[in-house]
Amino acid sequence: MEIEELQASMAHLYLDRDARRGSDATFRWLAEEVGELAKAMRTGDRANLEHEFGDVLAWLASLANLEDVDLGASVARYAETCPRCGAAPCGCPFP
Amino acid sequence: MEIEELQASMAHLYLDRDARRGSDATFRWLAEEVGELAKAMRTGDRANLEHEFGDVLAWLASLANLEDVDLGASVARYAETCPRCGAAPCGCPFP
Repeated sequence: MEIEELQASMAHLYLDRDARRGSDATFRWLAEEVGELAKAMRTGDRANLEHEFGDVLAWLASLANLEDVDLGASVARYAETCPRCGAAPCGCPFP
Repeated sequence: MEIEELQASMAHLYLDRDARRGSDATFRWLAEEVGELAKAMRTGDRANLEHEFGDVLAWLASLANLEDVDLGASVARYAETCPRCGAAPCGCPFP
């Protein structure tokens, strides 16, 4: 799926409610999903792990809609080379 | 950009290092980026806000590579209707 397609679908499905809830509460919900992803990494249930990755990405797209950020454009700098060092694979010195 | 294309690019650029770092430390780095997103929402710098959304998505893709999860497949259930109530827009009772 295109990132733009996901973001548009999230807007169609949830933007009215997301806007009523607001960015702060939507961020809190994203954080909750990140916590559920942490738990899924521990339990070893593959279907649940995939589910929680999807939920984190979906809530990130909802928050991007509220903040009027194009999520696909935001990540385009990672498409070919490392945005910090310019190499592929990355040659940055950090761990 | 396709979600699959982003995930493949992140693998090409970073998987060797991500694998040496491991899932736990990569999750910690994802959490750090989520914190940077929270801060960017507060400061009002639009370029920084877009940058931090991109970093959260990039680290989520790195973690998905380490956990052998297809990020595009994980979010496919949000493509057309709400995966909980089946409606579009969503008609779930939660806030």
